[in-house]
Amino acid sequence: MATRIHNFSISLDGFGSGEPQSFETPFGHAGQRLHAWMMATRMWDPVHGSAGMDDAFAQQHDPGIGAEIMGAHKFGPPGWQDDPDWRGWWGEEPPFRTPVFVLTHHAREPLAVGATTFHFLTATPQEALRLATEAAGGQDVRIGGGATVVRDFVAAGLVDHIHLVQVPIVLGRGTQLWDGLEGLEASYDVEVTASPSGVTHLVFSRKPSVTS
Amino acid sequence: MATRIHNFSISLDGFGSGEPQSFETPFGHAGQRLHAWMMATRMWDPVHGSAGMDDAFAQQHDPGIGAEIMGAHKFGPPGWQDDPDWRGWWGEEPPFRTPVFVLTHHAREPLAVGATTFHFLTATPQEALRLATEAAGGQDVRIGGGATVVRDFVAAGLVDHIHLVQVPIVLGRGTQLWDGLEGLEASYDVEVTASPSGVTHLVFSRKPSVTS
Repeated sequence: MATRIHNFSISLDGFGSGEPQSFETPFGHAGQRLHAWMMATRMWDPVHGSAGMDDAFAQQHDPGIGAEIMGAHKFGPPGWQDDPDWRGWWGEEPPFRTPVFVLTHHAREPLAVGATTFHFLTATPQEALRLATEAAGGQDVRIGGGATVVRDFVAAGLVDHIHLVQVPIVLGRGTQLWDGLEGLEASYDVEVTASPSGVTHLVFSRKPSVTS
Repeated sequence: MATRIHNFSISLDGFGSGEPQSFETPFGHAGQRLHAWMMATRMWDPVHGSAGMDDAFAQQHDPGIGAEIMGAHKFGPPGWQDDPDWRGWWGEEPPFRTPVFVLTHHAREPLAVGATTFHFLTATPQEALRLATEAAGGQDVRIGGGATVVRDFVAAGLVDHIHLVQVPIVLGRGTQLWDGLEGLEASYDVEVTASPSGVTHLVFSRKPSVTS
């Protein structure tokens, strides 16, 4: 069983979202620019989307995943913790269809929406991964973001595969992915593929552990 | 006549050099990792270097260039301004072979070394570019770095072509290229090419000016 990150978009300067984040602008001043590449794929739009390289990468997001871990900023806009009626961004059939563990300092009861159940917890990355792995029923766990959560789990050495998508824009401000990840290349093989669409796919595969 | 940047290497997290910079470690903890790709090309080693994509990009560095502008950090290690005998890193035949304008707050007399003459000046990017353009005799001007100088000239809207080389390492600290360049993509077309060597070439070509 592996821990994986997929389709995590960043700007050239490493921001996973812009600012300020709000209900109206979930990605701040980035708008939809970080994710336009994905919306243009068959994964997002099965009829009109493209079936090329970007789609091939994007389609890896779901198969074999048994649970997701996400940060509080992904589940809702700032302040959602104070709104007992907030049920996430995704309407009545969220696309996860697995247990989802939302890292938040505000505990609440599990919330079932469609085929997805959201669990809210305060936990270290290690504890959250242990719970998600149990819930995944032998399948892999996806770290769903945002940037802070990706960073924390990667820094803790818990992620086997990381797929980043670098979008050719300079955001200047927002949530930075690379902070605290100095020397990441020591633990991963890196493969970079430039897509004809203009984005660049960076795939980090964890090197086999060296036992001393 | 155009203003160009070539072979400017950065880490995934946007650092053009590591820290601390010294006589022994001109690129700080980055060592030679940011430039190993270039040292492996025919441009650097005409006999044993590779002649592939990296070389094709690297070879654009010199042809058609009539002058270079560089920052104080490129000319010497911290403190070189206090050493009247410092003549640059490059021995008795520096590879520039054109006038080179070194931006520094410590004026000194021009220094001829081999076929290169170094001029030392305190100037705005606009003023430095005007002087370098005059000295270039109808050829192009190269902005030679480091990151601070690249950033300042790009932010001032003075650069027509930018060639960056992203090396798949995370430096974590050093001199950051992207600071202050928010929205750069509005002024440039961006082409990204992943090299089989593992580095990624990013080329920014300034869009034609829109006159209102």
